[in-house]
Amino acid sequence: MTQALALGIDIGGTGTSFGIVNRRGEILSKGSMPTIGHKTPQDYFIALEYALRPLIEKAGRQNINGVGVGAPNGNFFTGEIVFAPNLPWKGVIPIVRMISETFGLKATLTNDANAAAIGEMMYGAAKGMKDFIVVTLGTGVGSGFVANGQVIYGHDGFAGELGHVIAVRDGRKCGCGRHGCLEAYTSATGVVRTAHEWLEQRNDDTILRANKENITAKMIHEAAAAGDIFALAVFDYTAKILGQVLADTVAITSPEAIIFFGGLAQAGELLLGPVHKYMEENMLNIYQNKVSLLRSALPDADAAILGASALAW
Amino acid sequence: MTQALALGIDIGGTGTSFGIVNRRGEILSKGSMPTIGHKTPQDYFIALEYALRPLIEKAGRQNINGVGVGAPNGNFFTGEIVFAPNLPWKGVIPIVRMISETFGLKATLTNDANAAAIGEMMYGAAKGMKDFIVVTLGTGVGSGFVANGQVIYGHDGFAGELGHVIAVRDGRKCGCGRHGCLEAYTSATGVVRTAHEWLEQRNDDTILRANKENITAKMIHEAAAAGDIFALAVFDYTAKILGQVLADTVAITSPEAIIFFGGLAQAGELLLGPVHKYMEENMLNIYQNKVSLLRSALPDADAAILGASALAW
Repeated sequence: MTQALALGIDIGGTGTSFGIVNRRGEILSKGSMPTIGHKTPQDYFIALEYALRPLIEKAGRQNINGVGVGAPNGNFFTGEIVFAPNLPWKGVIPIVRMISETFGLKATLTNDANAAAIGEMMYGAAKGMKDFIVVTLGTGVGSGFVANGQVIYGHDGFAGELGHVIAVRDGRKCGCGRHGCLEAYTSATGVVRTAHEWLEQRNDDTILRANKENITAKMIHEAAAAGDIFALAVFDYTAKILGQVLADTVAITSPEAIIFFGGLAQAGELLLGPVHKYMEENMLNIYQNKVSLLRSALPDADAAILGASALAW
Repeated sequence: MTQALALGIDIGGTGTSFGIVNRRGEILSKGSMPTIGHKTPQDYFIALEYALRPLIEKAGRQNINGVGVGAPNGNFFTGEIVFAPNLPWKGVIPIVRMISETFGLKATLTNDANAAAIGEMMYGAAKGMKDFIVVTLGTGVGSGFVANGQVIYGHDGFAGELGHVIAVRDGRKCGCGRHGCLEAYTSATGVVRTAHEWLEQRNDDTILRANKENITAKMIHEAAAAGDIFALAVFDYTAKILGQVLADTVAITSPEAIIFFGGLAQAGELLLGPVHKYMEENMLNIYQNKVSLLRSALPDADAAILGASALAW
């Protein structure tokens, strides 16, 4: 018989969030800690253990059915995080084994965007949908594909790396070592790169120039919201690249909706409006005016925690 | 209780093949007719009825469990062929209704490449696979995606149009009205376009020049097999574009294999060798050296007939 609670852990490029979740998708307690700042995966794991232990004790270890983990390049089949370009450490991290050895709890891993997709399907914007995509616009660009009501893991557990589709042939260098990946343009980091490049090459008048060393995606979003022409142009450029890739992606899985979350998705219509326009312009006629672009219906960090926790049932 | 036989119909851009198939995937009788040369869908359907009737009578209508149809832009959910750029007639053709009204048999439709994917999974190169892609290189480029052992139809039944992913931004005009689609480069028609373009622009010495008005994909294949440098360069160019798009596609569904069929796939290693090379060169590291490129293990027309017939069970 399964227990009443699950522990969901979302390992992101900068931060890690976790929470104790019940079967109705209510997060009973939660916490977070930085992913960065640890020298090795072992150091990170010690900090994670330290952060999780009080949550687990409070909930009662015997009440926890299992642990679900979402992480970039998290592999559902092997339980390992492999070569994640957006995590501070490299190499293969056997996170499922580490968690089960430390806490005596059964753990399941998938990539962060797959976890978010499960969260949206069970509790969020994708409730009742059988064919949709979740796209995370955070430190990197991740994605989770659901078809026929099931997450597409692929034969090796690594499906859904939309961030590493080539958006611009021979384009910007990406963290993965190749050139022109979607992630290099449309992640939170990517839009900042665009702003930096343009500020160096051009003389646009923009409120971003004053503080140009410390530009963040949030600052670009705020500037765009304030009507800054330069920031709006950065969003338009980003939207065009994302819209083009989404148009191609729709031709593969023909989803009912594409659901966005992550830091950059908080820009909402300011970014998704132009993305939708460019996607429609570039799409094969049979798909036009059918695909909704939605924002996650779950509080930002919660989608990933809820999705990860859902793996534990 | 289901009957022992099924009728499979594969409607291609140039020809239509059909056969009576038993449960073991043996084609007991088959035939074919041109798809082209009919003025309207109604004219085509009259010819199809004329061709099918003797097969159905010979098998015994009461022994036939149903009819499966594979066609470009065939929609599984609606039973209609919709806006198929590679069929000689335009508009919406309610083929499922036409067949059931004419023959009193239950009919099911899907796109030709999905039908081929089902055929490969049940009887061919994808036996035992749960995650693979079938790519048809014929008059057009079609595709069928299988994930978790199920065909991906998408929420509207139109998933799997790999031929209309943009391979070259602002590239060649495609039959769909857009520019740069994979199909405009790597279909049988696409390689002929490449040869024509190059013969006009360049002075290469090639055996294809002698008969340049009537070049076919088969002639290019034969010239390449004979060591013709020009024909080999056309294949290399085609392979590069196909390899790049496949590398991106693998990042979405992470298949165990990609299975090719259709006229151009008969070029075998001469084309698939370079495709494999370019795919590997362009692929994210986690996918490298994992994806097999295979030729259909079924006699060429049979994969589509078998797949279509499998819809009828």
